[in-house]
Amino acid sequence: MCRWGAWIGAPVFLEELLSRPEHSLISQARHATEAKTEINADGFGVAWYDHRPEPGLYRDVFPAWSDPNLTSIAQQIKSPLYLAHVRASTGTATSRNNCHPFAVGCWSFMHNGQFGGFEQFRQQTDARILPPLYPHRKGATDSEALFLLALGEGLEQDPYLAMARAIGWLEEQAEATGTTPYTRCTAAFSDGETLYAVRYASDNFAPSLYHRWCDHRKGRAIVSEPVDVTQSNWKAIPPGSFATFTAETVKILPFEPVRPVQRRVA
Amino acid sequence: MCRWGAWIGAPVFLEELLSRPEHSLISQARHATEAKTEINADGFGVAWYDHRPEPGLYRDVFPAWSDPNLTSIAQQIKSPLYLAHVRASTGTATSRNNCHPFAVGCWSFMHNGQFGGFEQFRQQTDARILPPLYPHRKGATDSEALFLLALGEGLEQDPYLAMARAIGWLEEQAEATGTTPYTRCTAAFSDGETLYAVRYASDNFAPSLYHRWCDHRKGRAIVSEPVDVTQSNWKAIPPGSFATFTAETVKILPFEPVRPVQRRVA
Amino acid sequence: MCRWGAWIGAPVFLEELLSRPEHSLISQARHATEAKTEINADGFGVAWYDHRPEPGLYRDVFPAWSDPNLTSIAQQIKSPLYLAHVRASTGTATSRNNCHPFAVGCWSFMHNGQFGGFEQFRQQTDARILPPLYPHRKGATDSEALFLLALGEGLEQDPYLAMARAIGWLEEQAEATGTTPYTRCTAAFSDGETLYAVRYASDNFAPSLYHRWCDHRKGRAIVSEPVDVTQSNWKAIPPGSFATFTAETVKILPFEPVRPVQRRVA
Amino acid sequence: MCRWGAWIGAPVFLEELLSRPEHSLISQARHATEAKTEINADGFGVAWYDHRPEPGLYRDVFPAWSDPNLTSIAQQIKSPLYLAHVRASTGTATSRNNCHPFAVGCWSFMHNGQFGGFEQFRQQTDARILPPLYPHRKGATDSEALFLLALGEGLEQDPYLAMARAIGWLEEQAEATGTTPYTRCTAAFSDGETLYAVRYASDNFAPSLYHRWCDHRKGRAIVSEPVDVTQSNWKAIPPGSFATFTAETVKILPFEPVRPVQRRVA
Repeated sequence: MCRWGAWIGAPVFLEELLSRPEHSLISQARHATEAKTEINADGFGVAWYDHRPEPGLYRDVFPAWSDPNLTSIAQQIKSPLYLAHVRASTGTATSRNNCHPFAVGCWSFMHNGQFGGFEQFRQQTDARILPPLYPHRKGATDSEALFLLALGEGLEQDPYLAMARAIGWLEEQAEATGTTPYTRCTAAFSDGETLYAVRYASDNFAPSLYHRWCDHRKGRAIVSEPVDVTQSNWKAIPPGSFATFTAETVKILPFEPVRPVQRRVA
Repeated sequence: MCRWGAWIGAPVFLEELLSRPEHSLISQARHATEAKTEINADGFGVAWYDHRPEPGLYRDVFPAWSDPNLTSIAQQIKSPLYLAHVRASTGTATSRNNCHPFAVGCWSFMHNGQFGGFEQFRQQTDARILPPLYPHRKGATDSEALFLLALGEGLEQDPYLAMARAIGWLEEQAEATGTTPYTRCTAAFSDGETLYAVRYASDNFAPSLYHRWCDHRKGRAIVSEPVDVTQSNWKAIPPGSFATFTAETVKILPFEPVRPVQRRVA
Repeated sequence: MCRWGAWIGAPVFLEELLSRPEHSLISQARHATEAKTEINADGFGVAWYDHRPEPGLYRDVFPAWSDPNLTSIAQQIKSPLYLAHVRASTGTATSRNNCHPFAVGCWSFMHNGQFGGFEQFRQQTDARILPPLYPHRKGATDSEALFLLALGEGLEQDPYLAMARAIGWLEEQAEATGTTPYTRCTAAFSDGETLYAVRYASDNFAPSLYHRWCDHRKGRAIVSEPVDVTQSNWKAIPPGSFATFTAETVKILPFEPVRPVQRRVA
Repeated sequence: MCRWGAWIGAPVFLEELLSRPEHSLISQARHATEAKTEINADGFGVAWYDHRPEPGLYRDVFPAWSDPNLTSIAQQIKSPLYLAHVRASTGTATSRNNCHPFAVGCWSFMHNGQFGGFEQFRQQTDARILPPLYPHRKGATDSEALFLLALGEGLEQDPYLAMARAIGWLEEQAEATGTTPYTRCTAAFSDGETLYAVRYASDNFAPSLYHRWCDHRKGRAIVSEPVDVTQSNWKAIPPGSFATFTAETVKILPFEPVRPVQRRVA
């Protein structure tokens, strides 16, 4: 289980979520309080939008607190929209290819959670990825697979429906293995314009998710765990939600996975 | 294209192929002479047999010449059978999961070569891997896939036939993409008892392969390129060969890929 | 503050301390119980003696639990005398050059502890290292400096006195900075024949140190923290001790740093 | 011997020197043509100025061509003044701390060259670094030492004189060892406003240095080797030169090291 944070609004330095606050993502890498695993030392990553439609991507396998490159990048890069992640592996190797966020074209994606028994249906999942997207399948995580499945289900056209279908299909596979919990998922993703987040679990323990408008910095933070100690003004997003953020607006809808009527033949 | 060497016989230090000779693998990483690419700086690895049936495995993504861990390990570890490899990526990422040798159970495998247009049929290849072997599919290379396909075709029961079928199937896919050369392949693999090597290409340019008995050290080296400058006494293994080495014996058979009569359904 | 373990006796796999026991060093990297810092994720290392007088050395900057190379090496290498270490940085960079153990010639050394205000007298310390040893000064830690100072004070001729002088000199510098605690130190070192350990602090909080004879494996483990959960039969070595271990014998003497009568001119 | 490039002028993407041109720094990492060593695979780094007085710093130990983080950063970050470097180690370890550029406060520095017999007088060099600067001595290279010595000689107040004194002192030490060539040096450095470069050797083989105004991009590139194949319009800076660049101006003065009248006591 991992910790993540995202920002949308006026351009701010990446350090605003990564390293400056008392309970920043980098300090959460050492001492998460709302996560299942306290230590998130199996890599980190950040995707940010700035001069181009495609996000920049910096990921590595070290603990986030010990990487001077990350510290420097966080102090130097300003962005109106970024995603940042610290990883606690649930089994797959510590490899840059398995670090979040993932990026394809102008889309970026990061995830905290798991699908029950994933290793038992990883091969079927890989077979279900749309062929033109398969070159982007570089690692072995369920997270990267979820992103590629969602892209294949039409993430660009209908983010809600695409994510509902992708999660629905994976949950169906998890159920077939009988490994509970079938789904625990808090994900954030963006096309560089709009920021989306989903909070969902097949049981009563959806990973936490919060957002807060910052009047001082003119933007909104969306986080798996508040990044300050006082935790004031953070609003919890309820389990079973799909949230859509622009710089000015928030829209939160109920979220349910959609089961595929019929599986495509791999 | 990569450079590799293997040893079978009396136990010797890994450095006998890796670092001691004038034209050792580590020096070939900087200046290969018979390879398509002169620099092999995209990682390295060594698999050795010693106290256990399973090989030890040390792989990393640095240039072989700059890793003090490799130098130390090569000076310290003695083995009667080992495989060592320096990598020049043909496109896939520099990641430990993509470094050779690969190991499954007591088998180890390394490879120099390529299958034409592999990225276009990587998804089909992944789907063809036998499900119980899929947890070992950790990277994205054609080399790891070839190894897992061969294991699925019965590498333990009939190494020749299994390798002929695995290469045959991959060559068939390459032909379907129309990307020449379809196959260039020099591979070595072992179960810890016997050392096998195959040299094959679909055209007239099979990557080089040599072997030499060392009376002084009581063993045999099998290499993609001689590890000394004088190159005396090295015997070239002809293109289209399947070689079987024990400590005392050498058997070289003509090798042809075998096309699958019918594809298994993934 | 770090965690470490050493072995002397009949050859055993490195995994006997590193990964097999319930509370092994690798599990202590995640959850140390007697250390000041719970997480030791800033690198690891192992030095082992086998076929040569010089130790083998494998060190890297990842968390010990996420390095498959370490797992493989620990399962494959047998040694009658080895030192293993997981690191929690007290400030210096996460770099291989700063990972323990350190090795010079046939000597190896590892350390848990600190000298108060070291960064303020690092330059003087570097100047005090004996010139022929300066090529071995590759990092910036107090630990590497302590080792090189002790070698310069005659570690080969009189390990007790050399270590007492090296610690004494560093403690004197720490006192001059006024930064308490001046010295906290638990170190282990070896020439490949005998294993030495020192436990000392300038205050009442010397880092913990234990040893235990294992009748089953015919050897002795010396550890900063017991590697099993029951912790039976571990003997604590008292603060202010210098211990000398051979395969069969244990000698524990009271230890006091020795202040240099006069400083050598750098 | 290494390859480097710097830019001053209108903001451009880092890729303008790093990866876009045919003979970019990243391609020079594989195939330098004017360097003593053809392969520069022992790390890379970039220092850029953007939102803050202090430069951003991204350095790593991989070959520049195999790091997707570098590729992404080069495509995303725009800067009016940056320094980029690919490294071929002349002996010191491949460690991030030994990668160029180095940065202290708002200054950045990178270097191609060597001082004869440096390892023999590294300890004296370390002792000569001004104590308040010693915390920045993190590696073991002559390059980092040259930078810190120059800062101690007043780089901020008089860049020419400070560099002349620092090189002069190091050259004096090299002469004492009798190891020729005493000095080969092409360095670039900046305070974020002005870009300086020095080309100097104690013999007739000063490493190459060029500059070119780019009318299209409104800025000037300063490089150890032209980054395009046609090499048109590049002006060679003569050996024994100290160059000062602003966005609009170029000033080239003859350069001679200055010997210290009297050594400070370490």
